[in-house]
Amino acid sequence: MGQKIEVKVRFAETDLLGHVNNASYFVYLEEARVEFFKTVFPEKKQSFVVASVKCDFLRQAFFDQWLMIQTKVVKIGNKSFDLEHAIIDKNSGELIATGRSVVVHFNFEKQASETITSEMRKQLEQAQHI
Amino acid sequence: MGQKIEVKVRFAETDLLGHVNNASYFVYLEEARVEFFKTVFPEKKQSFVVASVKCDFLRQAFFDQWLMIQTKVVKIGNKSFDLEHAIIDKNSGELIATGRSVVVHFNFEKQASETITSEMRKQLEQAQHI
Amino acid sequence: MGQKIEVKVRFAETDLLGHVNNASYFVYLEEARVEFFKTVFPEKKQSFVVASVKCDFLRQAFFDQWLMIQTKVVKIGNKSFDLEHAIIDKNSGELIATGRSVVVHFNFEKQASETITSEMRKQLEQAQHI
Amino acid sequence: MGQKIEVKVRFAETDLLGHVNNASYFVYLEEARVEFFKTVFPEKKQSFVVASVKCDFLRQAFFDQWLMIQTKVVKIGNKSFDLEHAIIDKNSGELIATGRSVVVHFNFEKQASETITSEMRKQLEQAQHI
Repeated sequence: MGQKIEVKVRFAETDLLGHVNNASYFVYLEEARVEFFKTVFPEKKQSFVVASVKCDFLRQAFFDQWLMIQTKVVKIGNKSFDLEHAIIDKNSGELIATGRSVVVHFNFEKQASETITSEMRKQLEQAQHI
Repeated sequence: MGQKIEVKVRFAETDLLGHVNNASYFVYLEEARVEFFKTVFPEKKQSFVVASVKCDFLRQAFFDQWLMIQTKVVKIGNKSFDLEHAIIDKNSGELIATGRSVVVHFNFEKQASETITSEMRKQLEQAQHI
Repeated sequence: MGQKIEVKVRFAETDLLGHVNNASYFVYLEEARVEFFKTVFPEKKQSFVVASVKCDFLRQAFFDQWLMIQTKVVKIGNKSFDLEHAIIDKNSGELIATGRSVVVHFNFEKQASETITSEMRKQLEQAQHI
Repeated sequence: MGQKIEVKVRFAETDLLGHVNNASYFVYLEEARVEFFKTVFPEKKQSFVVASVKCDFLRQAFFDQWLMIQTKVVKIGNKSFDLEHAIIDKNSGELIATGRSVVVHFNFEKQASETITSEMRKQLEQAQHI
């Protein structure tokens, strides 16, 4: 079911409501993308920017909780692709939040987006079946 | 055009790409919601949770840049309402990012969502015309 | 040499200088303390506050680097104790930063500091020999 | 009394203990240094690194509180200088925390520390009398 990373909720990631602050989830999603890039495009470095991120919060998460974030490709476009993330409690498997990231293939030297090459497309398609 | 807050980008909010880290935008959006709640519901305290947040990144923002975040009500539901945010460069007025938050009226004692009262609805409707 | 935790530097923990932002180290030190409390005082919950934290930065740390943080007791006072932290590169063993935390035994109900009991003192002394 | 900046505590800067998380203070101190550099060395850009930061926490700070951070030079060395920070409640003037930063004059191209020039020394000395 896609790439997986695990994070343990840190004290500093909570807020005065006693649960994980909503902005902390976006740090988790970033780490999920980072690991996704590393696994799917092992030879490419810093070739992507995030055009959009969304997170739907279904349940609260808490300090010291182990979370697993599953990430999979759900759409491959011309210059971008979409990832879906599921943030689940590692122990119970309970779904805590879902996320979606739109990732753009980006040339940092030219500061411009670039077409997804056929090789990248293959790598993304393979990643869909993990 | 809705409520406004201003933030100046902090050093710690940037990342190694030299621009504002995507997760930092969600802290800005949270502050925009906080000020929105304070202005529109001055008598209510901690009665809301965020069910969903999205941010579309159009341009990069940078260290020390002054940003303005405009927030307006775009939908009023039964137990929730939707806010739209525009993050713009304060000086040039250039649009840097847009956001959307779904906010749920929440009873923390009962840990359950609650109907938006008719008084709250009025306050939200008035906020639509600011 | 004391308790150990490992952290991998996250993308969001870097800044525009291309290295780990200085404030991120204090999140790592907090996690080191959290694990220390859990190991040394397994039965106590939220009984401590931090009175002082210091970090000396010797070398830069970078994105995706694995760090190990070693924590040991260096002083046991009447109501507080001091911890020393070494942040090292997990692979090379190179010292990156050193830290010191002053931790106060705190009663959150009374919102006041409390004497370190003889049992706690024993637990702290044992921790000195790990 | 040195340079002054003001910050309003953000929601995301609190933790489950209901107060400002200790790591957030180091972001405030960084902003204080940033403004200090801007004022005292208006023509220099990114010429400094932090060698050490310490914060002593005297009172808790809370969400939405306005804080003022005062920063002054307390020592001028050969390649570094020391700043002292006072974090106070803007309204009551009550002292919440004190901090100390050791700042090194740094050449990023050579990745090496550099002697503080006589001009910089003058600027720092002038800053002592603000």
